[in-house]
Amino acid sequence: MPFPTPFKHCPNCGTEVELRVPADDSRERAVCPACHAIHYQNPLNVVGTLPVWEADGRVLLCRRAIEPRRGLWTLPAGFMELGETTAEGALRETHEEAGADIEMGGLYTVLNVMRVGQVHLFYRATLRSPDFNPGPESLEAQLFAEQEIPWDEIAFKTTRETLLRFFDDRRAGRGYGLHEIDIA
Amino acid sequence: MPFPTPFKHCPNCGTEVELRVPADDSRERAVCPACHAIHYQNPLNVVGTLPVWEADGRVLLCRRAIEPRRGLWTLPAGFMELGETTAEGALRETHEEAGADIEMGGLYTVLNVMRVGQVHLFYRATLRSPDFNPGPESLEAQLFAEQEIPWDEIAFKTTRETLLRFFDDRRAGRGYGLHEIDIA
Repeated sequence: MPFPTPFKHCPNCGTEVELRVPADDSRERAVCPACHAIHYQNPLNVVGTLPVWEADGRVLLCRRAIEPRRGLWTLPAGFMELGETTAEGALRETHEEAGADIEMGGLYTVLNVMRVGQVHLFYRATLRSPDFNPGPESLEAQLFAEQEIPWDEIAFKTTRETLLRFFDDRRAGRGYGLHEIDIA
Repeated sequence: MPFPTPFKHCPNCGTEVELRVPADDSRERAVCPACHAIHYQNPLNVVGTLPVWEADGRVLLCRRAIEPRRGLWTLPAGFMELGETTAEGALRETHEEAGADIEMGGLYTVLNVMRVGQVHLFYRATLRSPDFNPGPESLEAQLFAEQEIPWDEIAFKTTRETLLRFFDDRRAGRGYGLHEIDIA
């Protein structure tokens, strides 16, 4: 997902927008010369989970069936939608991508991916069953022990960083406090 | 700030969009019948700080000079921009609205305000000086002890909830772990 494409036309009336700094603002915005609407573009949230099968400590990853990074492994996650909370979005994405039945835990990582204008939020989660039913966005969903994680085939840095923090925290036995991470 | 206004025209080519569920999707989107672009609308982040003057424990509030809620008090906060992290945005807003010199602390509250499609993220912060220089969005910036907080003149529930959690945590002496809050 690239950095958001700048608006060329006004989504309100269709007129070509002008890029300029509105009064009382300090940044260039897409401003409509016809209806005078100002159109802001802002970072988006990607919400997901780190689902664990507590019986043996394995974690759930999905192999992507779609671009970008088709064929690589990711924690279940996707764009937060209007009409849901961050946790509800993370739960929905886990259902959609893995068909997994989970109990939601607390917010675990907040990762700024400034280059693409995204903030990724991952929640810890507990699997109620080791059976999955991956949706069309996933080729497969599978449990991995720490030593089985396909580190060279992880789709996104935010998945990698979240997994690394989790295995570190678990080994250290120090609990699972929030991690704030900026992705270069 | 109301729930985002639905797109009427394609921001890419200006054609009137159609509202329909694209293939492989489950929600209505603004789809352009001319250039076939799909335009998503998603929740936005509001980022801010809870700045504390450690010498006496007072907290910084700003009185709003702009609508909505002109004349009421708020923690410094505003929409996260492209090209910055959540913490950078919170720092910027604190500079812009209060002219306050702060040292950033950790993420403290994540508040889902589903009704308006927003997620508010507040960081704890330490003031380096008790002198402020409020910008055009604020009528004034002022330090308040807990018993001085103008609870009946707080602009937003997210400010109220963040302040309440902070005073509770401080009284309990239990540290300042993350609070996840859904605003009805």
